[in-house]
Amino acid sequence: MTRTIDLWFEFASTYSYPAALRAEAVAEAQGFRIRFQPFLLGPVFRELGWNDSPFNLYPVKGRYMWRDLARICADEGLALRQPSQFPRNGLVAARVACVEPEADWLPDFVKRVYRANFAEDRDIADPKVVWDCLEGLVENPDATIAASQTPEVKARLRTNTERAAQMGIFGAPTFVIGEELFWGNDRLENALRFARALARVERAE
Amino acid sequence: MTRTIDLWFEFASTYSYPAALRAEAVAEAQGFRIRFQPFLLGPVFRELGWNDSPFNLYPVKGRYMWRDLARICADEGLALRQPSQFPRNGLVAARVACVEPEADWLPDFVKRVYRANFAEDRDIADPKVVWDCLEGLVENPDATIAASQTPEVKARLRTNTERAAQMGIFGAPTFVIGEELFWGNDRLENALRFARALARVERAE
Repeated sequence: MTRTIDLWFEFASTYSYPAALRAEAVAEAQGFRIRFQPFLLGPVFRELGWNDSPFNLYPVKGRYMWRDLARICADEGLALRQPSQFPRNGLVAARVACVEPEADWLPDFVKRVYRANFAEDRDIADPKVVWDCLEGLVENPDATIAASQTPEVKARLRTNTERAAQMGIFGAPTFVIGEELFWGNDRLENALRFARALARVERAE
Repeated sequence: MTRTIDLWFEFASTYSYPAALRAEAVAEAQGFRIRFQPFLLGPVFRELGWNDSPFNLYPVKGRYMWRDLARICADEGLALRQPSQFPRNGLVAARVACVEPEADWLPDFVKRVYRANFAEDRDIADPKVVWDCLEGLVENPDATIAASQTPEVKARLRTNTERAAQMGIFGAPTFVIGEELFWGNDRLENALRFARALARVERAE
């Protein structure tokens, strides 16, 4: 039974912040689980010819996005402080998220990193900030950060990024069920509706 | 009392199709009216450095959009046939939409043009197709089309397009209430929520 929805995310991505913070509760209320899938938007954007966030390349889109995000966060009761640097480099944190892809601590870690970036304006590119996000979630944050820098884990993030591009992902967050993509925080409910319909078909078969 | 929501649209815009077809019923159920505001995306896109629809410039985004639009149209019970030419030139139809900005026939005309483009795969750049969309709505379609080609009406569309850009509009559909922008068919409900909140404040004052 298809009871898992993949949430493909990038720590620098603005709309991934509300998505990551709200997805589990919304999905679990309908009997689904969220699997967090880290990838890097940088290489995906470079393929599209962008050497920066489109929200920086196209300031009119950026201005709208920050306003739209503020409304969304207000609706969701999420703190938002526009990061003094955007986008921040999420590489260190994304590698940490690849250490144990199915670990129980992963969802909490992901949420803490998003809060650090978008609610607390902390530099998530700094391993010390990532360390703080791990504290209390893993036994030894130093060991987890060390593990994130092994060739195996680095390769895991690279492979994830390549898979994302192959699947047709071009932005974050993207919810994925089978081969069906739902791009954007605002598509979570549609993704769940699709997942429910699919589950009904699978039950009937 | 702020009871009008402006729907800024462009006839070539894909997501404007479901927006134009559903906005009035959704808004009217909540006591609001939709005012259709035609503009041209071409000049707006050129300002962003795009000489074509971003869905053509970035095929991975285009593929996703057509899939996403198919899901939306299925949900809304709207026919969708991917136009054999995209984007189609909406200039003739947009000028006709500027002949009488507050005319009773305008909403029906707008919907017919969208259906012609996205449900019937007809070439809306052809004045004959635009004529068909006017038939039965205005007394004399020939006269309305002739009126659309006067300098006054041409200038009206140009002014609308400039106003859209000045307001920070960079895509269609965009719902506007005062200075607040809501971009995308999927933001209609948010726009209405904002409009209701604004109406409550105005009542209280």
